[in-house]
Amino acid sequence: MSVVMRGTDVAKSMKETLVQEVEALGKIGITPCLSIIRVGARPDDLSYERSARKRMETTGIVCRVTELPEDVSQEEFERTFSQINEDKGVHGILLLRPLPESLDEEPVRAMIDPKKDVDGMSPVNMAKIFSGDSTGFAPCTAEAVMEMLRYYGITPKGKRVTVLGRSMVVGRPLSMLLLKEHGTVTLCHTRTENLPAECSDAEILIVAAGKARMVSADMVGDGAVVVDVGINVDETGSLCGDVDYEAAERKASYISPVPGGVGSVTSSVLAKHVVRSASLRV
Amino acid sequence: MSVVMRGTDVAKSMKETLVQEVEALGKIGITPCLSIIRVGARPDDLSYERSARKRMETTGIVCRVTELPEDVSQEEFERTFSQINEDKGVHGILLLRPLPESLDEEPVRAMIDPKKDVDGMSPVNMAKIFSGDSTGFAPCTAEAVMEMLRYYGITPKGKRVTVLGRSMVVGRPLSMLLLKEHGTVTLCHTRTENLPAECSDAEILIVAAGKARMVSADMVGDGAVVVDVGINVDETGSLCGDVDYEAAERKASYISPVPGGVGSVTSSVLAKHVVRSASLRV
Repeated sequence: MSVVMRGTDVAKSMKETLVQEVEALGKIGITPCLSIIRVGARPDDLSYERSARKRMETTGIVCRVTELPEDVSQEEFERTFSQINEDKGVHGILLLRPLPESLDEEPVRAMIDPKKDVDGMSPVNMAKIFSGDSTGFAPCTAEAVMEMLRYYGITPKGKRVTVLGRSMVVGRPLSMLLLKEHGTVTLCHTRTENLPAECSDAEILIVAAGKARMVSADMVGDGAVVVDVGINVDETGSLCGDVDYEAAERKASYISPVPGGVGSVTSSVLAKHVVRSASLRV
Repeated sequence: MSVVMRGTDVAKSMKETLVQEVEALGKIGITPCLSIIRVGARPDDLSYERSARKRMETTGIVCRVTELPEDVSQEEFERTFSQINEDKGVHGILLLRPLPESLDEEPVRAMIDPKKDVDGMSPVNMAKIFSGDSTGFAPCTAEAVMEMLRYYGITPKGKRVTVLGRSMVVGRPLSMLLLKEHGTVTLCHTRTENLPAECSDAEILIVAAGKARMVSADMVGDGAVVVDVGINVDETGSLCGDVDYEAAERKASYISPVPGGVGSVTSSVLAKHVVRSASLRV
């Protein structure tokens, strides 16, 4: 039987520390504040916004939401972003993405104050993650995987760690975080030949491919640690991950479910980043 | 018998294109100009400077060298750097590194105009390499490996590509360039367990570990492509790579020698970057 890696347990443990830190900041007159910027009303965005708000509120972090219409002009979008960016009361900014196709994300990436960039979208933070400089902010989902491994006492050091998926929000930054922990990291993707062999060879397999249940039992090594970052809706309308959970859990030593896995940790990482940003302002 | 990947052949082929491009720029009144900044007189720096100067001159690129004393103050170093950075006649800047320990590289990394940063040291270029954006400049040595593979018709796509060494000048940026060409990239390093197995499993093995002849025959797979980025001086005072060439060439399908391998391509990539920077100024 494999150990189920429960995101809610990880989040609970993180919360205890965070609440204490927020209290300590409160004593010196600082209330951490996150500003969420949402364009339009995509269901994914609304769902993440809800969980982020809830997490901030239960942790004692102020959470503001700025909603812009889906057809907002680039100019107006940038002006709003800039105002929030310059607001001294805001410690962290979360821009919900992807943006509508009519908007260009680049100008705000370049503009965002790296110290407020709690979801690691600025080139400054990207370069830091790339170079292993831990003073930067990594994208929250990538770091949520690291929190999960840490909580369950799984150390990447020296191990064969395979990351399936090479996006800028998960796969790439995560591979650098794993490298920093001295894992021997392999990045696999759609063009990888013999994907089952690559994946089943991993001691730690992290799946962020965005394809429902694509990782079958033959892609999981005996005793492997399997972390599933995917969130998909299957043909019956249920949430599922990128891993065929029932099949994989028979071979894995540890496995994270969907829902209730990595997704439950992401907003805790976001809170952690906002608190860190507020602390650095002291 | 393996094919020897000769850097001089790659450089020769690159030169033909570059000379034509420099001529075309000349017709519209632009002479590409590289400014080299050297602090002190380390033999490695002098050697690279010599080969860079020669390559620029034979290509028609102006090459200026600014030499600063080894005990230059941080303030004076930054002032000199800033002047060169702002000089409209300079298209590319090469800062020879590592700097003396008394100097901090960070301020000039942050300062350098990304468009003049022909050796990819600025966070902007790092972030571009990391995200697969080819408008940025990668460190020349990393890109020299890609030029070598291209010249010999070796395509990383889908293949198991292993990079040994995770420095910011070779291993990490190179792994991202190989990923962009759709290789299945594994990054190995000193903490990797069972390094021989990891290396011998590679279809393309790139070694940038900085340790003389550390890659022995058992670390090379039959028919593998082996690219050696190392430049070391052995106990007899001779130059050698990170690969035990005599042993490895019996198993490899392609192998690059040291000297005469990647090192001979680096200054051509530098020239290519300066020309590209000058062209973008048009």
